[in-house]
Amino acid sequence: MQPALQDGDLLAAVDIGSNSFHMVVARYVLGQLRVVDRLREMVRLAEGLDERGGLAPQVQQRALDCLARFGQRIHDIPPQRVRALATNTVRALARPQAFLVPAETALGHAIEVVSGREEARLVYLGVAHAQPPKPGQRRLVMDVGGGSTECIIGSGFDAIERESLQVGCVASTRRFFGDGKLSRKRWKEALVEVGVEFQQFASAYRNVGWDEALGSSGTLKQVAEVCVAMKLTKGSITAEALPQVRERLLRAERIEAIDLPGLSDDRRPIIAGGLLIVEAAFSALGLARMAVSKAALREGTLYDMLGRGGADDPREASVAALMQRYGIDEAHAARVEATALMLFDRVAGDWKLDADARRMLAWAARLHELGLAIAHSQYQLHGAYVLQNSDIAGFSQQEQQVLAALVRSHRRKVPNKAFDAIPDRLLADTKRIAALLRLAVLLHRSHEAAELPELRASAKRDQLSLTLPARWLDQRPLLRADLGGEPADMAGLGIALEIRAD
Amino acid sequence: MQPALQDGDLLAAVDIGSNSFHMVVARYVLGQLRVVDRLREMVRLAEGLDERGGLAPQVQQRALDCLARFGQRIHDIPPQRVRALATNTVRALARPQAFLVPAETALGHAIEVVSGREEARLVYLGVAHAQPPKPGQRRLVMDVGGGSTECIIGSGFDAIERESLQVGCVASTRRFFGDGKLSRKRWKEALVEVGVEFQQFASAYRNVGWDEALGSSGTLKQVAEVCVAMKLTKGSITAEALPQVRERLLRAERIEAIDLPGLSDDRRPIIAGGLLIVEAAFSALGLARMAVSKAALREGTLYDMLGRGGADDPREASVAALMQRYGIDEAHAARVEATALMLFDRVAGDWKLDADARRMLAWAARLHELGLAIAHSQYQLHGAYVLQNSDIAGFSQQEQQVLAALVRSHRRKVPNKAFDAIPDRLLADTKRIAALLRLAVLLHRSHEAAELPELRASAKRDQLSLTLPARWLDQRPLLRADLGGEPADMAGLGIALEIRAD
Repeated sequence: MQPALQDGDLLAAVDIGSNSFHMVVARYVLGQLRVVDRLREMVRLAEGLDERGGLAPQVQQRALDCLARFGQRIHDIPPQRVRALATNTVRALARPQAFLVPAETALGHAIEVVSGREEARLVYLGVAHAQPPKPGQRRLVMDVGGGSTECIIGSGFDAIERESLQVGCVASTRRFFGDGKLSRKRWKEALVEVGVEFQQFASAYRNVGWDEALGSSGTLKQVAEVCVAMKLTKGSITAEALPQVRERLLRAERIEAIDLPGLSDDRRPIIAGGLLIVEAAFSALGLARMAVSKAALREGTLYDMLGRGGADDPREASVAALMQRYGIDEAHAARVEATALMLFDRVAGDWKLDADARRMLAWAARLHELGLAIAHSQYQLHGAYVLQNSDIAGFSQQEQQVLAALVRSHRRKVPNKAFDAIPDRLLADTKRIAALLRLAVLLHRSHEAAELPELRASAKRDQLSLTLPARWLDQRPLLRADLGGEPADMAGLGIALEIRAD
Repeated sequence: MQPALQDGDLLAAVDIGSNSFHMVVARYVLGQLRVVDRLREMVRLAEGLDERGGLAPQVQQRALDCLARFGQRIHDIPPQRVRALATNTVRALARPQAFLVPAETALGHAIEVVSGREEARLVYLGVAHAQPPKPGQRRLVMDVGGGSTECIIGSGFDAIERESLQVGCVASTRRFFGDGKLSRKRWKEALVEVGVEFQQFASAYRNVGWDEALGSSGTLKQVAEVCVAMKLTKGSITAEALPQVRERLLRAERIEAIDLPGLSDDRRPIIAGGLLIVEAAFSALGLARMAVSKAALREGTLYDMLGRGGADDPREASVAALMQRYGIDEAHAARVEATALMLFDRVAGDWKLDADARRMLAWAARLHELGLAIAHSQYQLHGAYVLQNSDIAGFSQQEQQVLAALVRSHRRKVPNKAFDAIPDRLLADTKRIAALLRLAVLLHRSHEAAELPELRASAKRDQLSLTLPARWLDQRPLLRADLGGEPADMAGLGIALEIRAD
């Protein structure tokens, strides 16, 4: 966040989930967040998803109507203090842009898609801020969403293990009880199938261990409420209570006839799939008891925003971890970063580049040689592959696409498709910072530690001018040869480069 | 090598280079190799390479004729003691199989393609065995080939830095002096272009440093001979001598008129590009003197064969390094490996699987979770990507393709294209060990540390049977569900799986 937050500033987080859409607005007071407004609509986006990744038009319309209402509420909050995140159902769309473009228009704000494991990190963060864990203790947090389920083990505010499973209450109800019928036989078979998903990481999780289990999400809150209404527990979910809730649910034989004490009407159509997931998780992880937290993804997103852009930006730590894992030459990366940012600061005014673009350029500079750990030949491709496909804590999928495109295009020819995955609203800026990264890499191509002389740079629309000291350049025939070929390559970014010596 | 070498055994290495083809036959005597035969033919394969990666028919025929002659010499040496390696020109072919299939027939032996950096490692190994470096000293080794140039810094028998550049004596002569004309102006421009290639790693190499420089390859031997014949040095190449050799060469104005003392007729057409590379390397690396070694890739290949299959197999160290870099769960990998090898030993006789296949299966088992370091979702794809694209010391490109295919197909559906890159001669065995790896992974899917019960397995043509204790299986409904779906997935490997419980 730049500039820093002032007392009284409003922040908002929008969670475009597979079952419900949520929005929370909070006020920043004395370093804390105070929630001042909450909105929730049960859009059931996952219901509209077909097998080929299409979205039913009436469900899309329901989503857009909801986002337009949310948009009205955040209209006066500065955009850098709003984050809207989309999760599993949008991840599963074959053409996410076909939904995201009208959705961003309806909301009046950019929407970022986050990976399942990033979602897991943010859920943990939300729960940890709402109910701070005891020092030194480990906590298991589970969130049953409409299309995916997140399981996290964490300590303090940090997630240690993060998993995101392709099972959710809407999707599982459709899959196992799509015709509305309930039976003990079908439940048993479904339990095995869902159990396999948990089984995959259960033993690793048990090895790490935890001191308490906390559930987030409407499904878990609802199951806990049923347990209380059935007088089985005093607020939590327990291994003893679950079979009794399940037997009572199965007695209905049909979904519309489900009669559980404390069950709200809008949960009835999806409680079967939700309870199934809870029972499978308790069994695979050997859980005895799970308390319930009101906080979730949206609160985690708010707290994450406090760190973004500052010294505690979680993305800084992620970039550092990648540099270490892939053995990146840090001294060289730092030189390229310094030059890239120097060029950025010269042209940022001309090109109206913002602080987000500057951060992306810095991270791409640090990571541009990542692919060398795989192979020298075509290393820009390998680096882009890793950045595109990795779970990188703190980054949205679009941010990862921007990083990947910058690394992909930092040397050699720029293929058209390098920028295919970049949303339109980020395309022009991404190509411009790609041009700056190319120049910075080129100026340090010989990997010498010597400092660069004073450079001048200016930009205007699709033009970029770089002026170098003639005498300095004359002593560097290799660099001159490289710079000679650069305007042709940079034309692939749609930018006319002019290089002058004086 | 299994079984171990006996005194008196013959070994042979074939080097299918871009300029010359070499073969060396050696006898294993008291733990040492004694060369008993050498063949060399200047095939100039790189001359036949066109811009689209095609190979001129008359050049291909020249290559096949040479390989047929080599094949006659190795006819009586057991195949596991022969290794034939192809380098840069074959790497550059658009359809390598169109050359490799007839080439393997002509030679009567499998031909493996090695990456530039693997070639660099083997060159270093050959030179180090021929002239052991002084303990604790670092050595720079350079090999100028027809299509690529390798630069290595090593200590003892180990390469520390390995680079392979896309410049070679045949290719550079064609590129810069294709019309046969020589001029000072053209030389200067070419020197800048070739210099850029060395400049990219020169500063990193200078930071590592070396105590002596040694050249391998015909080009460097020839340049040294010219230096001696011109009375400029007493056997090595020096920074002072090079400009005088170059001036004398340029005096000719045309390639066919080159008149250098000591130059052999068959070197004349390619000495210009070769000398250019040497001069660029001396300048970029700041070399003062380079001695010349007779050993090269072929000798390195022979010495590498001594280690292959034994405790010193260089591939073992490479697999261990990958496990470490990608943070693989070693305990789980070891369990999967043990089960995979147990299954292998049950069916190896039925399926006629050899020791090479067993090693590949073991390595694939150790590496099958590599892609988890990138992301959980579709991790089999990420692992295959890394294995296919990495420079992995000791492995030929085909061996890497086999590893990648095994990791790619170890879970979920097996796409047809997973095995596209596997040479026909390895296809059936690779699919069979892929089936064994799938079963081993499946049997350990819950990641439990508990030992497996006694299993029975047998195979016949495209059938595989697995028998599990019924009582044990009954207690594992998840495993039973997984095994139930496996025959359908394994059909994608062309193998009919039958699972019995008794």
